[in-house]
Amino acid sequence: MDLDAHVRLVESQMRTLLVPSEPALQPFYGMMSYHLGWLDAQFRPIQADGGKRLRPLICLLACEALGGDIQRALPAAAGIELLHNFSLIHDDIQDNSPMRRHRETVWHLWGMPQAINAGDGMLILAHLALQPLQERGVPPATVVQTLRVLDQTCFRLCQGQYLDIAFEQREAVDVEEYLRMIGGKTASLIAASAEIGAMLATDGSQAIAASREFGWELGLAFQMVDDILGIWGDPQVTGKSAASDILSRKKTLPILFALQHLPASSAAAFGRVYAQEQLAEEDVPQILGWLEQAGARADVIQRAELHTQRALAALDRTGGSGPAQEQLRALAQSFLKRSF
Amino acid sequence: MDLDAHVRLVESQMRTLLVPSEPALQPFYGMMSYHLGWLDAQFRPIQADGGKRLRPLICLLACEALGGDIQRALPAAAGIELLHNFSLIHDDIQDNSPMRRHRETVWHLWGMPQAINAGDGMLILAHLALQPLQERGVPPATVVQTLRVLDQTCFRLCQGQYLDIAFEQREAVDVEEYLRMIGGKTASLIAASAEIGAMLATDGSQAIAASREFGWELGLAFQMVDDILGIWGDPQVTGKSAASDILSRKKTLPILFALQHLPASSAAAFGRVYAQEQLAEEDVPQILGWLEQAGARADVIQRAELHTQRALAALDRTGGSGPAQEQLRALAQSFLKRSF
Repeated sequence: MDLDAHVRLVESQMRTLLVPSEPALQPFYGMMSYHLGWLDAQFRPIQADGGKRLRPLICLLACEALGGDIQRALPAAAGIELLHNFSLIHDDIQDNSPMRRHRETVWHLWGMPQAINAGDGMLILAHLALQPLQERGVPPATVVQTLRVLDQTCFRLCQGQYLDIAFEQREAVDVEEYLRMIGGKTASLIAASAEIGAMLATDGSQAIAASREFGWELGLAFQMVDDILGIWGDPQVTGKSAASDILSRKKTLPILFALQHLPASSAAAFGRVYAQEQLAEEDVPQILGWLEQAGARADVIQRAELHTQRALAALDRTGGSGPAQEQLRALAQSFLKRSF
Repeated sequence: MDLDAHVRLVESQMRTLLVPSEPALQPFYGMMSYHLGWLDAQFRPIQADGGKRLRPLICLLACEALGGDIQRALPAAAGIELLHNFSLIHDDIQDNSPMRRHRETVWHLWGMPQAINAGDGMLILAHLALQPLQERGVPPATVVQTLRVLDQTCFRLCQGQYLDIAFEQREAVDVEEYLRMIGGKTASLIAASAEIGAMLATDGSQAIAASREFGWELGLAFQMVDDILGIWGDPQVTGKSAASDILSRKKTLPILFALQHLPASSAAAFGRVYAQEQLAEEDVPQILGWLEQAGARADVIQRAELHTQRALAALDRTGGSGPAQEQLRALAQSFLKRSF
């Protein structure tokens, strides 16, 4: 599946928004460009890993599969990727993460105040990115509607983030609460990517709704696979240490499932170990044992498969066709293969 | 000048956006409502000081003075005030300020991660606030244009914030740099308030440009008066300690003017005192002496008067009329009277 040409289009479109307006502001733009993988910490051009650009790809392919012109959707695709990256810059501050994609995070290099501001700047650029839609022939009412979807999505993202931060301070979180949280934090933006792509290709409300559903189900599956990789992923592939989510005591789906489904005594023991300030490497085998005992891995794999099937069924209902439709299908299937 | 009815309209409009969608999210909405002065720290309704709502008032009056219907401008006025408050929530984190308007700040009560997220949420609400413009008969193309002005303004705000944070880490900042910074941080949003109000009343590009200029000049005057109050303001009136900006070593306009205009030996001594980690109450009289010697207060007053005159001249050029026009004039004049 060769999507390099699409990625290059998105990159160019994003770059048009990040041209410093005056020399004094160069570091402000520089911090954002650093995060996107275009500059190093001294603001010299490089090609670092800036992420897979998955969301804008879904937007462009969803547009193309429904007969739309990807040139028309490009400003929205760029805006979606900038929105995603705003959330990562702030997430890294909130999680106190020093590294992302093998590089120092923005706050770790330039301090928390500037990193908050760089994230804010990126969020605003995500909006300004959509302004050129009009020049590309998208009717103003559709531009307003696109911005509405983008902002409703971003608000759900903030709601999900609120829950995520609140959960860290709570002992018990149940699986349903967790699913609502990842719905806001992950699935809603992937849903919006597919929805906006469809909106810029067609007025057909059924096709748009099915495209959104495709993205939503795909987003849930994506997060579940991520949760599996965070515990059982190959460090060579993930670029993180083995069982990294366990060592950082993240309450991801397999953990919450086990806490809810283990016999009471094991669940209590698990809860005590997980509630420690710091987890040691030595605790990991015992925790993996509890997860195994609860059948947590199998359950989450099964859920991810279910959501992928639902995504594929929704994709069929969009009525899309051609190579782009097949690429969306292949993309959805490839997620599952990432892990097992 | 009775603008209470206008303020009440803005408050009601803002409240429509902050209705929790489900009980689990109540604290997320609660933190934002607390900041706006509607709830206490336990999320019980109160009436606290949430600020003067100056920017939405300017928006509504600018619309009214040009013959527009304030009901049409209300969603934009609410959005502008939310945008302003987003910047305050993040500003308080970035400045490490524990108090605002005699109340604890959001980050101080709920921690930095949740406060970043509450600010992000408020910024998105500022955008969603504008969506009802369409239902009120504003053409979609004007809605897109209004969102463009709002986002360009917010991006300038982020640029100003970048400079502000960067200046704190620098020894020398000249007056010109400072004026550029406050242009971004303060004047641009007041300019946008007046511009958007005009845009929602008329298509006349000259009236819109003059209204924007009114807001811009007013914003500069406003910040200069604030800088004067931060040093020479009456603690009874400002609610801050005397010479509060000196004690927190802020590089405001009077300080920068003095550093630039004192004889070299005094300027160097001033610079050394101001560069201390911590300023003592005992340092204040000496610093006030240097400011006096440089004529800093008189210079900043003169600048504030000049910008107020320019604002009033621009207001005349808008061609606005009626009580709203007179209220805008009175508002501009009242700023100067705040301080001297």
